[in-house]
Amino acid sequence: MSFNKKKVSLIAEKACINEDEKTLISSFVEVCSFLSEFPDELSWRTSKVNPKKPDAATDEGLEMLANRYFEAYRRSDFPAEPSTIPDEMVSVIMENAYGYSAAECEKIKVEHQYSMCAENCVGNLLERYLDSQLRSSHWNWCCGEFVKAIDFLGKNDNGEWIALQIKNRDNSENSSSSAIRDGTRIQKWFRSFSKDTKKGRPSFTNWQKLPSLIQGYNLNEKEFKLFVSKYIKEEKKNLGK
Amino acid sequence: MSFNKKKVSLIAEKACINEDEKTLISSFVEVCSFLSEFPDELSWRTSKVNPKKPDAATDEGLEMLANRYFEAYRRSDFPAEPSTIPDEMVSVIMENAYGYSAAECEKIKVEHQYSMCAENCVGNLLERYLDSQLRSSHWNWCCGEFVKAIDFLGKNDNGEWIALQIKNRDNSENSSSSAIRDGTRIQKWFRSFSKDTKKGRPSFTNWQKLPSLIQGYNLNEKEFKLFVSKYIKEEKKNLGK
Repeated sequence: MSFNKKKVSLIAEKACINEDEKTLISSFVEVCSFLSEFPDELSWRTSKVNPKKPDAATDEGLEMLANRYFEAYRRSDFPAEPSTIPDEMVSVIMENAYGYSAAECEKIKVEHQYSMCAENCVGNLLERYLDSQLRSSHWNWCCGEFVKAIDFLGKNDNGEWIALQIKNRDNSENSSSSAIRDGTRIQKWFRSFSKDTKKGRPSFTNWQKLPSLIQGYNLNEKEFKLFVSKYIKEEKKNLGK
Repeated sequence: MSFNKKKVSLIAEKACINEDEKTLISSFVEVCSFLSEFPDELSWRTSKVNPKKPDAATDEGLEMLANRYFEAYRRSDFPAEPSTIPDEMVSVIMENAYGYSAAECEKIKVEHQYSMCAENCVGNLLERYLDSQLRSSHWNWCCGEFVKAIDFLGKNDNGEWIALQIKNRDNSENSSSSAIRDGTRIQKWFRSFSKDTKKGRPSFTNWQKLPSLIQGYNLNEKEFKLFVSKYIKEEKKNLGK
């Protein structure tokens, strides 16, 4: 059965609620085209309430995928308010090991929570930034995390799939990246170094080592920083924070 | 082949370098006795340099286990100095999302690193504290992390193995706890709650829910806190910090 791009586009369009989202339809279609070729690469957690995995070969499955895709795009990556209870033993160690006062530890405890919340968004913001620069290209964002270990999909000049896996840090946990068959290659890239292993490293970011296939789109740290500031400011306003 | 406790004790004694360590010999012997019954429960990372897994049925294997066990006991759980490079994008988010100033972010960045280092020792200190209270009992500390997903081993009145898995937080990652065969039961316990899910929860620690088999050893949060303060102070002195 051949993949019907026109039909998938129409299903995607129904899942969109504004014009901006519609500029992602062609990316969604390509992602579904990939999944129709490699159904095992679908990553979908089932539950008792939702026991069914979507099948990209059926209209119902495509609707499920479209909803997940555009809902994830709409979801804000503004950092959450801390919701965990800090472990008091951390303060006990901070006081005795590093000499912070009890009052300092109280303040540090709260700021540490905010730092963790901020940290947790960087990976998503990095994907959003890359998509913002790549959307008009032949690269397709796998928004919604339903393609195993792949963040962007494209094709090379021979029409073979090329997959990109993006990490924010060189020490981010590896997702269980399954080996994809039949000539699909996964290229991996991380944005930042967590350790100063190389004496005199001029930069702790890794933009100069972007895979050659996504070079030429003016992707760099300075622009990423501007993107993040702008995104967070706008979301803060949108969310009424 | 029956397990020769006398021989294992002698091998352990050679791995000890002071009298304090010798009080752990009987625990080490019990751990090896368990591994001789359940060799698949050994957790050992091999490498090109060290391609061999220890076999608890050979003297050589027992020596490897004894060295690992007592070296881990000797290793300090004083928090490390931060060695990672902070991600500057976290400060960008902190400034724009929560309104911290650039100067505050510089300070928070460093304190956040120290907080993570402190956090990373709590789990180990919890095991040390439990061992300090349980060593003279029939409970045996699986020091050195070479028994899969098990932190303490004991036997019940019927001579059946009982295994304990200890976590510091209810949201700590689960180690891949293999199901142990032949009547060995794993009891799990965590020390602290990370979320305030229960309205009016009187305490965020879980000492009142200790598995019944390790009740009666005066294990509690107040004593754990005293243990941590004392341990960190002593190690600070020992390490000349």
